[in-house]
Amino acid sequence: MPSVILHFSTLEVDLRIGPDIRDITDEINRIVGRSGIDNGQATACVVGSTGSLTTIEFEPGVVQDLNDAINRLAPQERAYAHEMAWNDGDGHSHVQAALLGPSIALPIRDGRLRLGTWQQVVAINHDNRARRRTIEVTLTGV
Amino acid sequence: MPSVILHFSTLEVDLRIGPDIRDITDEINRIVGRSGIDNGQATACVVGSTGSLTTIEFEPGVVQDLNDAINRLAPQERAYAHEMAWNDGDGHSHVQAALLGPSIALPIRDGRLRLGTWQQVVAINHDNRARRRTIEVTLTGV
Amino acid sequence: MPSVILHFSTLEVDLRIGPDIRDITDEINRIVGRSGIDNGQATACVVGSTGSLTTIEFEPGVVQDLNDAINRLAPQERAYAHEMAWNDGDGHSHVQAALLGPSIALPIRDGRLRLGTWQQVVAINHDNRARRRTIEVTLTGV
Repeated sequence: MPSVILHFSTLEVDLRIGPDIRDITDEINRIVGRSGIDNGQATACVVGSTGSLTTIEFEPGVVQDLNDAINRLAPQERAYAHEMAWNDGDGHSHVQAALLGPSIALPIRDGRLRLGTWQQVVAINHDNRARRRTIEVTLTGV
Repeated sequence: MPSVILHFSTLEVDLRIGPDIRDITDEINRIVGRSGIDNGQATACVVGSTGSLTTIEFEPGVVQDLNDAINRLAPQERAYAHEMAWNDGDGHSHVQAALLGPSIALPIRDGRLRLGTWQQVVAINHDNRARRRTIEVTLTGV
Repeated sequence: MPSVILHFSTLEVDLRIGPDIRDITDEINRIVGRSGIDNGQATACVVGSTGSLTTIEFEPGVVQDLNDAINRLAPQERAYAHEMAWNDGDGHSHVQAALLGPSIALPIRDGRLRLGTWQQVVAINHDNRARRRTIEVTLTGV
């Protein structure tokens, strides 16, 4: 069996005021392609405490429905203790991102992410400002 | 130190109309056993955008309580934008699965998953149809 | 390229009645430092079904806001089916932990976790008792 190799890369994605949801599947698949890894796993993690990663069927309806659900979890208009100290208007952003979580672990099979046909990897900006989000991608496999 | 090896396998589990929660701990432990890995990690990811993975104490009360909480997060009876376009009745399924997340990362120690005594790995089907769910399991370790 | 190595270690952290949120970034960075791994990934998983892991800006306001949001997801004062059988008062703990999830995958770059300046890894105890929580940390990298 060949030795397990490591490959890592950084994605930068421009996102609007949150919740903003963007499909990053192609970008991760390009990293997988460059790695030469056929089978293994990719982990991805957003740098920063107001971003998150998950998978969805990336079509406008689901995007809107997920945005609505995220806003129900932690509505912008609530009072947040973070605001008392910092007053930067992003109390809801921190809570939303913590509940969804910053990281994901995805299978690589036959040189690509193994996902459902209607399943895409998405990065979510929860911040109340547009942000260039950094996502660290780490691959291990053979 | 021995070289890190990779092992991967696919689980297929039949699940009922969602939310349906099934214990897959034994199935993953069998994959760990076949791999020959004593120490390392297992990542698992559901293929498809209406499934998720987490851990619970797998007893009927917690299963029901988690089902109830999942239905509160995204009730089936809400109006979903996904429905406007697709009308397949699973708007809530997509939102629930995205919030819980498709993947998990578990420790392998002494040739088995290291979990709590009352902690099981579960696959959740959120779809409004019974589904055979595919779960990709990737192990790395020594 | 050097071979991928594996390093694993166990953290024990004392947490109060839940939700209690503790910053474990320094503890994980110490494990990374001892491993000799410069680049790769760390996965961490809480042992037990009433704990979870995520990242936040660890300041008192966000900690309180996240606690409040966790309690809205599964309030202690609801009726839980788990209680009917076990009557140990922790129905809400199980639901909260399952929704947040037990595990996280973090990038290692230049011999440290690559996180945002205001992003810390936190362990959360959701139990209705103070608990010494065990967290298994598994590193792979070069």
